[in-house]
Amino acid sequence: MSKGLPKRSEDYSLWYNELVKKADLAENSAVRGCMVIKPYGYSIWEKMQAELDRMFKETGHSNAYFPLFIPKSYLSKEASHVAGFAKECAVVTHYRLKNAEDGSGIIVDPDAKLEEELIVRPTSETVIWSTYKNWVQSYRDLPLLVNQWANVVRWEMRTRLFLRTTEFLWQEGHTAHATKKEAEEETNRMMNVYAQFSENFMALPVVRGRKTESERFAGADDTLCIEAMMQDGKALQAGTSHFLGQNFAKAFDVKFATKEGGLEYVWGTSWGVSTRLMGALIMAHSDDNGLVLPPKLAPIQVVIIPIYRKDEELDAITEKANEIMADLRKVGVSVKFDNRDTYKPGWKFAEHELKGVPLRIAIGPRDLENGTIEIARRDTLTKEQFELTSQPISEKISGMLDEIQKSIYSKALNFKSEMTTEVNSWDEFKKVLEDKGGFLSAHWDGTAETEEKVKDLTKATIRCIPLDRKDEAGVCVYSGKPSKGRVLFAKAY
Amino acid sequence: MSKGLPKRSEDYSLWYNELVKKADLAENSAVRGCMVIKPYGYSIWEKMQAELDRMFKETGHSNAYFPLFIPKSYLSKEASHVAGFAKECAVVTHYRLKNAEDGSGIIVDPDAKLEEELIVRPTSETVIWSTYKNWVQSYRDLPLLVNQWANVVRWEMRTRLFLRTTEFLWQEGHTAHATKKEAEEETNRMMNVYAQFSENFMALPVVRGRKTESERFAGADDTLCIEAMMQDGKALQAGTSHFLGQNFAKAFDVKFATKEGGLEYVWGTSWGVSTRLMGALIMAHSDDNGLVLPPKLAPIQVVIIPIYRKDEELDAITEKANEIMADLRKVGVSVKFDNRDTYKPGWKFAEHELKGVPLRIAIGPRDLENGTIEIARRDTLTKEQFELTSQPISEKISGMLDEIQKSIYSKALNFKSEMTTEVNSWDEFKKVLEDKGGFLSAHWDGTAETEEKVKDLTKATIRCIPLDRKDEAGVCVYSGKPSKGRVLFAKAY
Ligand SMILES: [Zn+2]
Ligand SMILES: [Zn+2]
Repeated sequence: MSKGLPKRSEDYSLWYNELVKKADLAENSAVRGCMVIKPYGYSIWEKMQAELDRMFKETGHSNAYFPLFIPKSYLSKEASHVAGFAKECAVVTHYRLKNAEDGSGIIVDPDAKLEEELIVRPTSETVIWSTYKNWVQSYRDLPLLVNQWANVVRWEMRTRLFLRTTEFLWQEGHTAHATKKEAEEETNRMMNVYAQFSENFMALPVVRGRKTESERFAGADDTLCIEAMMQDGKALQAGTSHFLGQNFAKAFDVKFATKEGGLEYVWGTSWGVSTRLMGALIMAHSDDNGLVLPPKLAPIQVVIIPIYRKDEELDAITEKANEIMADLRKVGVSVKFDNRDTYKPGWKFAEHELKGVPLRIAIGPRDLENGTIEIARRDTLTKEQFELTSQPISEKISGMLDEIQKSIYSKALNFKSEMTTEVNSWDEFKKVLEDKGGFLSAHWDGTAETEEKVKDLTKATIRCIPLDRKDEAGVCVYSGKPSKGRVLFAKAY
Repeated sequence: MSKGLPKRSEDYSLWYNELVKKADLAENSAVRGCMVIKPYGYSIWEKMQAELDRMFKETGHSNAYFPLFIPKSYLSKEASHVAGFAKECAVVTHYRLKNAEDGSGIIVDPDAKLEEELIVRPTSETVIWSTYKNWVQSYRDLPLLVNQWANVVRWEMRTRLFLRTTEFLWQEGHTAHATKKEAEEETNRMMNVYAQFSENFMALPVVRGRKTESERFAGADDTLCIEAMMQDGKALQAGTSHFLGQNFAKAFDVKFATKEGGLEYVWGTSWGVSTRLMGALIMAHSDDNGLVLPPKLAPIQVVIIPIYRKDEELDAITEKANEIMADLRKVGVSVKFDNRDTYKPGWKFAEHELKGVPLRIAIGPRDLENGTIEIARRDTLTKEQFELTSQPISEKISGMLDEIQKSIYSKALNFKSEMTTEVNSWDEFKKVLEDKGGFLSAHWDGTAETEEKVKDLTKATIRCIPLDRKDEAGVCVYSGKPSKGRVLFAKAY
């Protein structure tokens, strides 16, 4: 009944791919690397969007929309930025099709060649800062606190549904400030918004950290990030927040008149999360039976399934189900009555398990007689008989949903801490990485050379320098040179 | 103080462009024909999206997301579809940039040419129906009721902010049904959803109608539409809903097993509205002082402006303003206290007038003494003193907002009916079109030849065959041939 989902222990990667498809989350399209996000998957993304959007607005940001296309010359204006993105750009060169003269079909019209090629945005710093130039004259115009929900394209050679796709959906915040301090505070604030969203809504604990110089965003002076641990021991970068210094202000000549009458370059930040979070959500909690969703992001929190033989039984169950649904909806619980007569209860149980519905209520004729219902938890796969007179149903269900949300989080938190290992020698590093995986907390000498060498030898990268790390003198796990503190290494998605 | 907005009577087109820019709604970007939707403009669009999205969900639709790119061969599969869109397609031909070997800068890497060119979606029927092929096997999989919020690109030669842009934002619904009847009902249902949204939220009355064959969507068997009348006497198509017959099902081989064991092609619809609605909203109600927004779509419904000289006065006014804001927010009214000390009250009055805030409350020291406030209506530009003890403020303001919503609608409804003229001869047709404009209700012989001839001679097109038209025998206003009823001609955006 699990629709043939592979086991995680046998093939984690195949398990993930099959789960994404079988739970109706997403599938590959005919265009290489571009996915179709199916209605059920999209409804989870909508819930994530709604919460994030609320958090952005609460921190003073407004949404806007900037063009999909970036003139090639714009992308080139910030040197390290173009170097970072040039290799994966979709390029528009023509603006018309026509019928081939030899009748062979529709071809690109060679007469409709663009004077300057357009790049499908891989990120929007350049087009936004070229716009900010006109929006900012004086200190009174600052700060600009703008976010955009959009699609972006990065031509990836190896793609995986949600985790790495050629086109993906995201939000990108782009802010402009009068002072360095304000921009740094903003960078930090939005990293914390991401961390809170991840922990409170996705039930996914994260490490708040700083990227090393070589892992920074192309064009940033500093990149903060949140890193999560997946069930297979690989890390996943769930969100980044960049302090851009005055790099884009200088590239696009964005200056402002200060209160004191001077003229200065503006300070910038940018920050983003994407449909990649869907991948993190799926991998973090799910099991061999399918998806496990935190109640706060589940499109359907409770499903009610009638168990019956005769039509009169269904009628009586329907009446009870309607009562329960009305009670639950009053307290904001989303509930669905699955009364399809084209499928049997067992099939429905498996279906809703696969799709991660947090609670399942089953009602049969015996239950009606006894004044009970059966409630099953998706996360623990446990069942209980509940007496309807013992407690208001809305209270019972709300309580259970809260409990599931907390329980999923604790489980992930325990897992993350079990999967974080202090290692103090190169042999230990290699052994733990190979046998156990997870985060390796190790001393590093601070050089890009060592970082790269470790990556070449083991595929582990420095995920981040945790913001809460202790100052602790030590020696680099690889080079033996002095180190000021531990960083987190891991193999990563 | 109107920031130099041109008068409508002098130059309607310039008035519109300047209004869009000065009210911070949108501006042109560096990419020809692509606009930047500014935060204030986008916040109106968000309100429109939220209502439409709610209406789509209430009628059973779910959102999903399909790829931005369409393989060239897909676009070609439905013959009339590709003919309709081929001339305005942005084409991606390469997937990488590189440094020019002669050091001249960044160039498109000729080695990274795509085997098959990709079209940036002008609309998504082809990519969606190629997906539906895998989603539909049996009658149990139908209907598919899917919507997508997305950006699309049509390479327009002459563009205008919101009304006609190369890239625009829209929603596109794509549904699949087991029977012709169901698909026709859906086509009709969604046209009515659009009409209700336009009338109830945008305060914009529309004509519900059917497009003539030559104005149909490329690939549709029937196109329903809503048409609105702008202040300059030009019509604007505000939304379309297409009955696709089995055209796309046949092009992409989408069949289903019927209950009775047969195998049949699926029936389809598609329907969409876009950021063009922003253009309609702006043009429908605004005046020489700026934007006039219906309260239901105004991001800020009430602005409170303090009038003071001394700081103690501001303190007392602030206390009163906070009370009022708390009362208004309790009943769901969005309100802003504009206490910026960098601008004078007169400047603020003009600013909020320009931005179309429906109600303005001014509070000065004298008001505090008298227990009054001044309330000004944006739509009528009238003011009144309101005694705070006479009625709860929340009741007063909610009442006024309702009244404004209704009043704006009535005004537009009267205008539309004044601007609809029955004409019965060719001379009359030409005279009314030139002197007055608006909708010309006239007999038409039903031929594409006459339709085209009228267009060539006068630039007026058949906006639609109204759904509620009476059967009325007559003679065509142009050809003198027999006609079964009147259609609406107009010059249009
Ligand atoms: Zn990190
Ligand atoms: Zn029409």
